[in-house]
Amino acid sequence: MIHWGIEEFFMKDNSSFPIKHQHSTPMSEEKFRVESDLLGELKVPIDAYYGVQTQRGINNYHISRKKMRDYPDYIVAIAYVKLAAVQTNHSLGVINDEISGAISQACQEIIDGKMHENFPIDMMQGGAGTSVNMNANEVIANRALEIMGHKKGDYQYCYPNDHVNCGQSTNDVYPTSIRLALIRMNKSLVSSLTGLISALRYKGEEFKDVLKMGRTQLQDAVPMTAGQEFNAYANNLEEEVLNLERNVKLLHEINMGGTAIGTGLNAVPGFAKLCAANLSKLTGEPFVSATDLVEATPDTGAYVSYSGALKRLAVKLSKICNDFRLMASGPRCGLNEINLPPKAPGSSIMPGKVNPVIPEVTNQVCFKVIGNDVTVTFAAEAGQLELNVMEPVITECLFESLWWLHNAIDTLTEECVLGITVNKERCYEMVKNSIGIVTALNPYIGYKNSTKVAKEALETNRSVYDIVLEKELMTKDKLDEALDPKNMLVSHKFIK
Amino acid sequence: MIHWGIEEFFMKDNSSFPIKHQHSTPMSEEKFRVESDLLGELKVPIDAYYGVQTQRGINNYHISRKKMRDYPDYIVAIAYVKLAAVQTNHSLGVINDEISGAISQACQEIIDGKMHENFPIDMMQGGAGTSVNMNANEVIANRALEIMGHKKGDYQYCYPNDHVNCGQSTNDVYPTSIRLALIRMNKSLVSSLTGLISALRYKGEEFKDVLKMGRTQLQDAVPMTAGQEFNAYANNLEEEVLNLERNVKLLHEINMGGTAIGTGLNAVPGFAKLCAANLSKLTGEPFVSATDLVEATPDTGAYVSYSGALKRLAVKLSKICNDFRLMASGPRCGLNEINLPPKAPGSSIMPGKVNPVIPEVTNQVCFKVIGNDVTVTFAAEAGQLELNVMEPVITECLFESLWWLHNAIDTLTEECVLGITVNKERCYEMVKNSIGIVTALNPYIGYKNSTKVAKEALETNRSVYDIVLEKELMTKDKLDEALDPKNMLVSHKFIK
Amino acid sequence: MIHWGIEEFFMKDNSSFPIKHQHSTPMSEEKFRVESDLLGELKVPIDAYYGVQTQRGINNYHISRKKMRDYPDYIVAIAYVKLAAVQTNHSLGVINDEISGAISQACQEIIDGKMHENFPIDMMQGGAGTSVNMNANEVIANRALEIMGHKKGDYQYCYPNDHVNCGQSTNDVYPTSIRLALIRMNKSLVSSLTGLISALRYKGEEFKDVLKMGRTQLQDAVPMTAGQEFNAYANNLEEEVLNLERNVKLLHEINMGGTAIGTGLNAVPGFAKLCAANLSKLTGEPFVSATDLVEATPDTGAYVSYSGALKRLAVKLSKICNDFRLMASGPRCGLNEINLPPKAPGSSIMPGKVNPVIPEVTNQVCFKVIGNDVTVTFAAEAGQLELNVMEPVITECLFESLWWLHNAIDTLTEECVLGITVNKERCYEMVKNSIGIVTALNPYIGYKNSTKVAKEALETNRSVYDIVLEKELMTKDKLDEALDPKNMLVSHKFIK
Amino acid sequence: MIHWGIEEFFMKDNSSFPIKHQHSTPMSEEKFRVESDLLGELKVPIDAYYGVQTQRGINNYHISRKKMRDYPDYIVAIAYVKLAAVQTNHSLGVINDEISGAISQACQEIIDGKMHENFPIDMMQGGAGTSVNMNANEVIANRALEIMGHKKGDYQYCYPNDHVNCGQSTNDVYPTSIRLALIRMNKSLVSSLTGLISALRYKGEEFKDVLKMGRTQLQDAVPMTAGQEFNAYANNLEEEVLNLERNVKLLHEINMGGTAIGTGLNAVPGFAKLCAANLSKLTGEPFVSATDLVEATPDTGAYVSYSGALKRLAVKLSKICNDFRLMASGPRCGLNEINLPPKAPGSSIMPGKVNPVIPEVTNQVCFKVIGNDVTVTFAAEAGQLELNVMEPVITECLFESLWWLHNAIDTLTEECVLGITVNKERCYEMVKNSIGIVTALNPYIGYKNSTKVAKEALETNRSVYDIVLEKELMTKDKLDEALDPKNMLVSHKFIK
Repeated sequence: MIHWGIEEFFMKDNSSFPIKHQHSTPMSEEKFRVESDLLGELKVPIDAYYGVQTQRGINNYHISRKKMRDYPDYIVAIAYVKLAAVQTNHSLGVINDEISGAISQACQEIIDGKMHENFPIDMMQGGAGTSVNMNANEVIANRALEIMGHKKGDYQYCYPNDHVNCGQSTNDVYPTSIRLALIRMNKSLVSSLTGLISALRYKGEEFKDVLKMGRTQLQDAVPMTAGQEFNAYANNLEEEVLNLERNVKLLHEINMGGTAIGTGLNAVPGFAKLCAANLSKLTGEPFVSATDLVEATPDTGAYVSYSGALKRLAVKLSKICNDFRLMASGPRCGLNEINLPPKAPGSSIMPGKVNPVIPEVTNQVCFKVIGNDVTVTFAAEAGQLELNVMEPVITECLFESLWWLHNAIDTLTEECVLGITVNKERCYEMVKNSIGIVTALNPYIGYKNSTKVAKEALETNRSVYDIVLEKELMTKDKLDEALDPKNMLVSHKFIK
Repeated sequence: MIHWGIEEFFMKDNSSFPIKHQHSTPMSEEKFRVESDLLGELKVPIDAYYGVQTQRGINNYHISRKKMRDYPDYIVAIAYVKLAAVQTNHSLGVINDEISGAISQACQEIIDGKMHENFPIDMMQGGAGTSVNMNANEVIANRALEIMGHKKGDYQYCYPNDHVNCGQSTNDVYPTSIRLALIRMNKSLVSSLTGLISALRYKGEEFKDVLKMGRTQLQDAVPMTAGQEFNAYANNLEEEVLNLERNVKLLHEINMGGTAIGTGLNAVPGFAKLCAANLSKLTGEPFVSATDLVEATPDTGAYVSYSGALKRLAVKLSKICNDFRLMASGPRCGLNEINLPPKAPGSSIMPGKVNPVIPEVTNQVCFKVIGNDVTVTFAAEAGQLELNVMEPVITECLFESLWWLHNAIDTLTEECVLGITVNKERCYEMVKNSIGIVTALNPYIGYKNSTKVAKEALETNRSVYDIVLEKELMTKDKLDEALDPKNMLVSHKFIK
Repeated sequence: MIHWGIEEFFMKDNSSFPIKHQHSTPMSEEKFRVESDLLGELKVPIDAYYGVQTQRGINNYHISRKKMRDYPDYIVAIAYVKLAAVQTNHSLGVINDEISGAISQACQEIIDGKMHENFPIDMMQGGAGTSVNMNANEVIANRALEIMGHKKGDYQYCYPNDHVNCGQSTNDVYPTSIRLALIRMNKSLVSSLTGLISALRYKGEEFKDVLKMGRTQLQDAVPMTAGQEFNAYANNLEEEVLNLERNVKLLHEINMGGTAIGTGLNAVPGFAKLCAANLSKLTGEPFVSATDLVEATPDTGAYVSYSGALKRLAVKLSKICNDFRLMASGPRCGLNEINLPPKAPGSSIMPGKVNPVIPEVTNQVCFKVIGNDVTVTFAAEAGQLELNVMEPVITECLFESLWWLHNAIDTLTEECVLGITVNKERCYEMVKNSIGIVTALNPYIGYKNSTKVAKEALETNRSVYDIVLEKELMTKDKLDEALDPKNMLVSHKFIK
Repeated sequence: MIHWGIEEFFMKDNSSFPIKHQHSTPMSEEKFRVESDLLGELKVPIDAYYGVQTQRGINNYHISRKKMRDYPDYIVAIAYVKLAAVQTNHSLGVINDEISGAISQACQEIIDGKMHENFPIDMMQGGAGTSVNMNANEVIANRALEIMGHKKGDYQYCYPNDHVNCGQSTNDVYPTSIRLALIRMNKSLVSSLTGLISALRYKGEEFKDVLKMGRTQLQDAVPMTAGQEFNAYANNLEEEVLNLERNVKLLHEINMGGTAIGTGLNAVPGFAKLCAANLSKLTGEPFVSATDLVEATPDTGAYVSYSGALKRLAVKLSKICNDFRLMASGPRCGLNEINLPPKAPGSSIMPGKVNPVIPEVTNQVCFKVIGNDVTVTFAAEAGQLELNVMEPVITECLFESLWWLHNAIDTLTEECVLGITVNKERCYEMVKNSIGIVTALNPYIGYKNSTKVAKEALETNRSVYDIVLEKELMTKDKLDEALDPKNMLVSHKFIK
């Protein structure tokens, strides 16, 4: 290592950033043990279950302040993968009873929520997840050593690579554990989304008799009910539940047993299929082994699709929030059709103003999800030859999008949708006063005559109703019937 | 209209753009007929099947030089939709035999490729497709008039809105016809893609005995065959065929019968379901009527998903082209594993240079598809209340992405993949000389010993083979067996 | 070339795409001449000024239907670059008088608009522009041959590479000519934009006395004039003129003289600086030679910045169009503050409906520009080592964005903005009726009292004015003064 | 508020997400004070400097786990803005000496790093920053109360809105403080970037005599030195320093004094200009008051530009990291031109493998920055009428991009670039063996002859040198001279 400039470098003023870039964790002499790897020796905190390679990961990556352990779903997922692997190796005679038992117990403890603080590496990392896989290997190995009555670091009895990682590579373990984590987090998202759909459907029922003007291109169109509108939102999002589930299915295809590049080097025959079966049994998820492990190893297609599903949800959610904000515009100089529950005084200067803050924050979460999808696209395209090393940023984006959407949807449901009220009279006045209802007369007087009526109404500021009668285009009875809301809200036979 | 500045405005120098912005098509006096609509009278070319509203569309939009008729799939699709609609109206007793027959014949003629030149409106348009729907209504009405023995423009016998558009709105016709067009174009894309997959698979077979170094993170990993690599490309794209088909299915849900905002105003009961059935029968595609037409009308979810599928294909295709360019790098200072067929002298200054031009153009097409997906996302998010008016740009992007991908894939298959050759000896030399093969020794000597061997090999520039023997870590027989390519290319039992 | 599958391949059904993929242009026997290059012989149309390498370019790329010649600005630009280069080589004694004179005349003819049809290569191409540079070299060489009294193809007298391309490479000629083309097209865009700004400013003046409600977060805020609003649009876009000019400046740094990789191999000393000077003199643009030609050769920073400027313009333009559509919403169930000039009947089903079609098409153009910016970003990131081969798609995107924006802005100005009218009484009624005016009372009665007044007004549906008087919070005189519009539209001293 | 479904809602399983959505902070009875606002009373922790509106912000937003206080630059920035505002109000006679003095002292304490923990609101929020502005108003008011000898919450002596926010609105304070924060953070980024540039330049000097093959399109081109390459990287990034500074300048235009919508309602005349002057004096930054405050209030152009500058830096940084990874590919089956300092064992399965982890993590940071730019674009486009409410997500993205880039660049400099070594002999061997050097012979033997030599060299696997001599195309002396590296690395006169 050339040391030129290091001192000068550190004289730069980096003080405005919140957390200083730290190049190593200083440790007092008594509180560490020494471990070694390809690159030499390194101190590790004496109580840490992790080892030398995790310590290198800690030292190398100071990027995002987000740690792997911030996502317990992920920590649990990799423990499941390691458990399935050791069970497989044990069945296939590669790992003996004692070691296998100890490793299994260590995995189970992590699944049960223990030792999560031992996964401190930055979410943003190089090495295609090697640091994280080794982090798991080391924590499990050290805990297994304790279980077998040895001290942490006495790896001759249980070696992170040879035993915990036996028949595995980061290149199959990392994507498999990411997939399981996404599958778990997706359940939470679907649960939130289902809550929002229920709330919208409830409002659809509540507003089913509220006649209002439908608008296309922001121009007055034809009548509908507020109930139809809210039900449509519910149905629109219901498709997103299906779409998430359709896309999460792609994550069930895993590449365990492919090892480094999918050729399966160092995994014994049968490992791939049995490991998938074991993981399925443990998690209740229908994992299958990819048919071509060489293909599966660098493949990021499932992430691209799943990110696309999150994006599609974001696009729809944002549109719905835009609609809420539009319909709640006013109170006196806007559409003023609905009222959102007030959550905060809306202005530091304008007294009495209340803003649609919950839809607004939801919109912004949606924009972030859309941006994250572009990041995922970039990262997926950057795969080269037998691997895609950009999976950590794919992971970071998907986890962030999932979590923010989950939070925003819960907030939207509870703090906004459940409290929406509608201004029924205002809505009805607008319909009655509108020109758009002339559309209902097409079948009787033709598009051309209807156009003339509409034009005259607009120019003279009179009502469609009066003009049609005045021109004797229809009888009063027939006109009343044609403009009866019940006949404008659904397909109906033309009145004879 | 305030005329301020119009003259001044036109004195601006716009000369550097290829096609001057033209505000109306000048016509000689004898060659037009006069039609009228809500906005007044307008001249239409006397022979045109289209009418006044199409003419307004022509006059209004001078944006992209791309016309609707540039995509015959689209013109045919809207004719099918109009045919299904008139059949439905006839069955339901809303349109009589004569008019229905004439309209049907006119539609069939368009399906058969006639009158396509009568669809001259710019792909980029406002009005959510109204100009296009009216273009179809007018062409069909005028042709139907001729069939019934009337003159073009004698709309009292067959009115574009009342008859051709009967029980319909742009807001159901336009999205339905876009969907059918996409379904048709998708077939062509899948056909191209299948060709590429076949070519890759053929190469996979051809290269099945070529041993080469697998690389992860661009670093030497473990051995594989070039056949495994090309087969993996084929399998990787095979998933895209499935993914396109999975997503194209979403386009089969249509909203005919919803009319303006999905409430079905002016469509008679039964129209929606019967029209979907008729369209299915005519096209052989399994269309279904959306369960909630209010929801379906502004919904762009299916486009977002389908665009996402095109993007996923682009991401994978781009990665494969990157790999081709990497493996073909050289000829003397690069990897030089494969040779792409030369397509052009590569340089105006460097004699003898040949560049990977076909993968390069394919990469660029992929980037455009990715950008188009962002445009689709923006447009989809911009829906408001009961409609999304941004569908024309969604259409333009999807059509462009589909067509460019189709062309690029055909080019890649025929001008590149089918002609790829491999430098077998060069590939083999690299494997033999590599350090990565030490991985195969892990099960015998452990990760730690393997690491030491690898480190020594790198530092001394010697071979793994020699060092293992020298250190007596394995017997020669066992070492030969472990490093036998047949044992490194698949999972295998550890040698006892 | 392996011929497997070629026949089978062509049996695929590609019929739904408009233009069949053609693998070579068939030519009748008498109408061609034969030329040759590194790859062998090829037929070229006998009258074509282009030669063998152009023909390969034509044959290789069937992607987009967009040709280089669709952008005359580009054809003129490359001719200028070639003219500057030959002048430089002549001055430096590398090309003799006769050949230099003939080449110069040929370039001038292209600048004058001749022979543009001889640039038929697809915009989407591999080879980093080599086909285009060779296209120019060949057309110029063949025309120069004619000028010198030789036949087309008699390259011994004037060789495309040795003479026209002397001291040059695609890698300096192509980016330099793209830059000049962008600079030229930017002028047209700025001219359009200036027209729009004038129109907005004119409306600002026209509406200067129209009091209306300002809205933040779509909620009623405080009063302003429609004139302030339209003036703000003008000022907002004025910044885009500056921003375009700021960014177009980056395009003035060129790398002529760098040749293949910036080391200047085969360009004589002095070429770089003199060529930049010559190009400046010819075009009136202040070109400078990049200080580090090795850096400049693969650099795409200026394109990324310029694309960013187009995107920023698109973002603002889209926001303004969104505002227009919002303020024109109605006519009876929306804000209805302004009226856009009607351009087309708005609906095939709803008589009398008129839609904001011009802002809508502008919005969509903006979305495309935003997507193109993502494509440019992808392409820029894909540079490798000494070159970025993805420049053709950058070119295609920038040209498209520029041209579409130019067209959309002209359309918006002429077909929409110049005809906007305002509904003055409606606007005034909303202000008078609003609660937001209570803000003006803060300095007199404090935020807390104002809040109480606002709350009561909202709950009781009464006016702020009445409540303040009733509660005797202010005298009538002082209240009238505080709520006088002239005191609410600008900063003012608090009334004593 | 309708309570339907609340209980049911909470029965959903959200357990897999790390931090439960919490709807209010539970507080024990003795530890709070009660404050009230438009929406009623609320408990606030008794020791908190913040008040009721901050508490609502805390309760409303549980999205991202990122707090405003995570960015001390931002907290300091808003304190500066509040200090400038109170100084201005004091000068203009609107706030008296005592209150002004207390507010000033409170602001200064925050600038000095105190009370930052009192800014706990989620970065992701609705309300266009109102919560944050009120957070500052409340903290400053309560601290000022203490300074004046009152208790927290005794707002009659110093009211958050009437005194601390006097003549201000969130709509001018929030964007102004964001701008100052960005200006401060940009300095840190430029400092990091300058360090990287120095490191690259140092390597440029170190490698100035290392001859290597230049490559275009990944194909062997012509020779250069590794020094030229690293210097080019330095120069390439030097432009980014300029570009950041060019774009950060746009952030110096502020809209203080515009208040709610830019009309300046409730700010006294002179406030805008004087406040900008005061802020400039306090911070040393050349702030200017925007010429049209109505325009400036909703404008997000400067953020779009600055985000574009971050993106451009990311694009270039990513390209450089791609190059590092490419040149370091191997060690035995890749280019192997340079060695990156080993940072971690590269594989859990492949012993001895070392991966380019630092460039990899940098690439991924760049992808995130690019995605964030898309989010910023979406948010900027979503402005409506007199405000853009999406500024919080713009802030979140810009802060994240800035900080991650800062961290990644420091890491890249210290952990990678400073330790790069070059394999001089390997590089030289490749040049000597290459065909590309034939380019240097063009001026002597012409492009056509050079092409023949190159073709023969490639086909026969011989050297260019031997073939030229054999064919007697040049004398040995002249050939040696032409191929002398010193003549291939810069423009030179052709040898006579």
